[in-house]
Amino acid sequence: MRSDGAFEALAAALLLGGLLGCTVPAEEAAGGRALIVAGGTLLTMDDQRTIVENGAVAIAGSSIVAVGTDRDVRATYPEATVLDATGKLVLPGLINAHAHVPMTLLRGIADDLPLTEWLTDVIFPAEAEFVDEEFVRWGTRLACLEMIRGGITTFVDMYYYEDAIAEETDRCGMRAVLGETLIDFPAPDNATWDEAVTYTERFVNRWRDHPRISPAVAPHAPYTVSGDHLVAGHRLATELDVPLLIHLAEDKSEVETILEKHGMRPVQYADSLGILDDRVLAAHMIHPSTDEIGILAARGVGVAHCPESNMKVAAGVAPVPQLLAAGVAVGLGTDGAASNNNLSVWDEMDTAAKLHKVTTGDPTALDAQTALALATRGGARALDMVDQIGSLEPGKRADLIIVNIDGYHQQPVYDPYSVLVYSTQASDVETVIIDGRVVMKSGTVLTLDADEVLTRAQEYRDRIRAGITHPQ
Amino acid sequence: MRSDGAFEALAAALLLGGLLGCTVPAEEAAGGRALIVAGGTLLTMDDQRTIVENGAVAIAGSSIVAVGTDRDVRATYPEATVLDATGKLVLPGLINAHAHVPMTLLRGIADDLPLTEWLTDVIFPAEAEFVDEEFVRWGTRLACLEMIRGGITTFVDMYYYEDAIAEETDRCGMRAVLGETLIDFPAPDNATWDEAVTYTERFVNRWRDHPRISPAVAPHAPYTVSGDHLVAGHRLATELDVPLLIHLAEDKSEVETILEKHGMRPVQYADSLGILDDRVLAAHMIHPSTDEIGILAARGVGVAHCPESNMKVAAGVAPVPQLLAAGVAVGLGTDGAASNNNLSVWDEMDTAAKLHKVTTGDPTALDAQTALALATRGGARALDMVDQIGSLEPGKRADLIIVNIDGYHQQPVYDPYSVLVYSTQASDVETVIIDGRVVMKSGTVLTLDADEVLTRAQEYRDRIRAGITHPQ
Repeated sequence: MRSDGAFEALAAALLLGGLLGCTVPAEEAAGGRALIVAGGTLLTMDDQRTIVENGAVAIAGSSIVAVGTDRDVRATYPEATVLDATGKLVLPGLINAHAHVPMTLLRGIADDLPLTEWLTDVIFPAEAEFVDEEFVRWGTRLACLEMIRGGITTFVDMYYYEDAIAEETDRCGMRAVLGETLIDFPAPDNATWDEAVTYTERFVNRWRDHPRISPAVAPHAPYTVSGDHLVAGHRLATELDVPLLIHLAEDKSEVETILEKHGMRPVQYADSLGILDDRVLAAHMIHPSTDEIGILAARGVGVAHCPESNMKVAAGVAPVPQLLAAGVAVGLGTDGAASNNNLSVWDEMDTAAKLHKVTTGDPTALDAQTALALATRGGARALDMVDQIGSLEPGKRADLIIVNIDGYHQQPVYDPYSVLVYSTQASDVETVIIDGRVVMKSGTVLTLDADEVLTRAQEYRDRIRAGITHPQ
Repeated sequence: MRSDGAFEALAAALLLGGLLGCTVPAEEAAGGRALIVAGGTLLTMDDQRTIVENGAVAIAGSSIVAVGTDRDVRATYPEATVLDATGKLVLPGLINAHAHVPMTLLRGIADDLPLTEWLTDVIFPAEAEFVDEEFVRWGTRLACLEMIRGGITTFVDMYYYEDAIAEETDRCGMRAVLGETLIDFPAPDNATWDEAVTYTERFVNRWRDHPRISPAVAPHAPYTVSGDHLVAGHRLATELDVPLLIHLAEDKSEVETILEKHGMRPVQYADSLGILDDRVLAAHMIHPSTDEIGILAARGVGVAHCPESNMKVAAGVAPVPQLLAAGVAVGLGTDGAASNNNLSVWDEMDTAAKLHKVTTGDPTALDAQTALALATRGGARALDMVDQIGSLEPGKRADLIIVNIDGYHQQPVYDPYSVLVYSTQASDVETVIIDGRVVMKSGTVLTLDADEVLTRAQEYRDRIRAGITHPQ
């Protein structure tokens, strides 16, 4: 995955006039087909971190076709429909680089337990009994509602029945990288490894040409998938030419288990199997050694940092400043709602910035601009999708959000990065555009029936509560 | 301050019928003067952590007069006005145990800087140039808007022109413990120690009998106030019989300075001066030794834990599980908006729970119920006000909030403590009642002119931005 430098430069160019680029002539985008998001302050998150006050983004079809000042963009596309963002911030949609979206239906089912007790006494039994295709569909719908409401335009998922997740994601208009989980024990959808591989091949081939859904292969983790199967999973991803998603170096017990079994730490072990390359997105990465950080950088592995989940399950603190310094591409992930307990990348940004300051003792360790970069271009780089998403630039997919900054908790605003990272809540997102389509307007999600989803979520809660025995 | 036990028992009594108590006969509260918050799930946060499903709270004047099931409370007060909370959670108002509320006007003015640079290059010059009585009034109004919106009913403040802060707090209907800062260098409102003492005496005597404003004495910290003055400040608080607010053991450099000057650590030093007793609320308390934790417990000192501020300025992690185990009363504080950058106790609860899990490596270290207890009864105990606030019990002040739990980010709900601590945002608060008065209804703050406050906040931002030179 592309590595465009350690601690990407904190440049902040201010565009005072003109266009940053224009890919479609006005005549082609005319006739009401173009949409201009106009009047807001643009945080482009491009290489120069260009900020355009009173700026505008022009969209034709699913693409950004121009970024510049309001006056110049409007003059270029005089026939376009205008969406007013005056007084608001406009930025690339947030990327949730690691999730298990159907687990929203298990949000907060059991908290504050030791990890093994939580997994073996609550999560695994609940999944074994209740996870089927219907569960996955309703869980995905609830997650997409929450993610769109909070300004996420792209998410990465690893779960079961991923084909159903892809259908629901497609329906609500989100962009996603979706990996069917491969694991060495019977899963809700596939009883054996071979069945799961067959499912994955069919799943990948069904979705590979979709404009918003990128299918992936997702071997669960080195402690739940054998070495042979990790190699086979990587071969499958390579042959199909899709991303490989994996949990790696998440827990100390994982490090100990792999060390004991293989005489190597998890990243070293994965590398010895030849499965680390630039198609890999590794979630968590809490416990890499310095040598292993070097391996990740050399192989171009992307990392999904999940600070809130890691804190809540007491797994540890990923060495993000060191990963960035080594040139590793890092995105931010929420993990599943059962271990977080929400899908807010705003919370992850805020927590990431604060957590790395306090654990390093250095208040400059991870600043607000870097936190926003992780949630946008960082995630895009980690997914090797930076040519498509992660910044507001002509030629990229039109994934952007408009954010209100007039809340009592946000005012006054001295710095746009600061207000976003340290003060903004998911509920401050006003409008969400994905692939050129307005999927949320003025806080209302347009592509899902929220009442029906909430009703079904409560029905699942009632059934699950009645069916499983809580510890204590 | 009252110490009702280490890790207060995780009891959860479920009231199925009847009243938990009733202090005012129906006839006295009749005639439309009583208000019933009815139909919601009550998290009383009383000693038994009683939860009442389909419950009701009756309010007469400024007091809670009955807590019980909806049916029984309504039957007791048939003439009362009813505020419907069906499908929502009803809980004691949140207590913000440490803040500098006028600093909202400096929210995010400079972030991600080393502490000394942040203070000496940005905050102190901005305060020296811009803080006057008007600044304090508008900053307090903005802070009260934000705090009411987020369900805070009581806050603790240390700043300058505290008399103006008290007037503004009184006007908007909030409850507060307000301490005029005493410090050994010229402050914006008082040029000398003697002037500040005179101001404080007048301030305390003006407000001491107010039903919602508790005046306090607030010597800044042991590294900014001499030993003689700390003793004099404590004598003043004792003579006036009011709380003493202080910053204590916040920063490693403070510990080193005090050790070097006095051969003792900060808590030991304060104790050697005889200034630690149950009227003291000490903010931050990041670096007490085990011996010092024993001193705090023995003297009945309350602690205001400010996890987000402590993380953001990289000051360290307070040993909250150890403080609680020793029986120290701990509340949660936001600190000033310049170092956080918001006044959300929801964020502090979530962060406290997660931070202590990850730093101890124990996912049971601080659970959701304990986090909510810190933000309610914990703050009340730390302030020695647990007979008045911190739980829903007959005879206490009517400070309560109604919280929506139908957000996409909250559903489904398996556990009421979990949804509040791990999923809820400030924007989910629906209604706020303080001292029996509805100060926010359906998300609208009724006691402040929000448009005017936001306009003035932006004017201050423009003036301050023009007037001070940012670093870099």
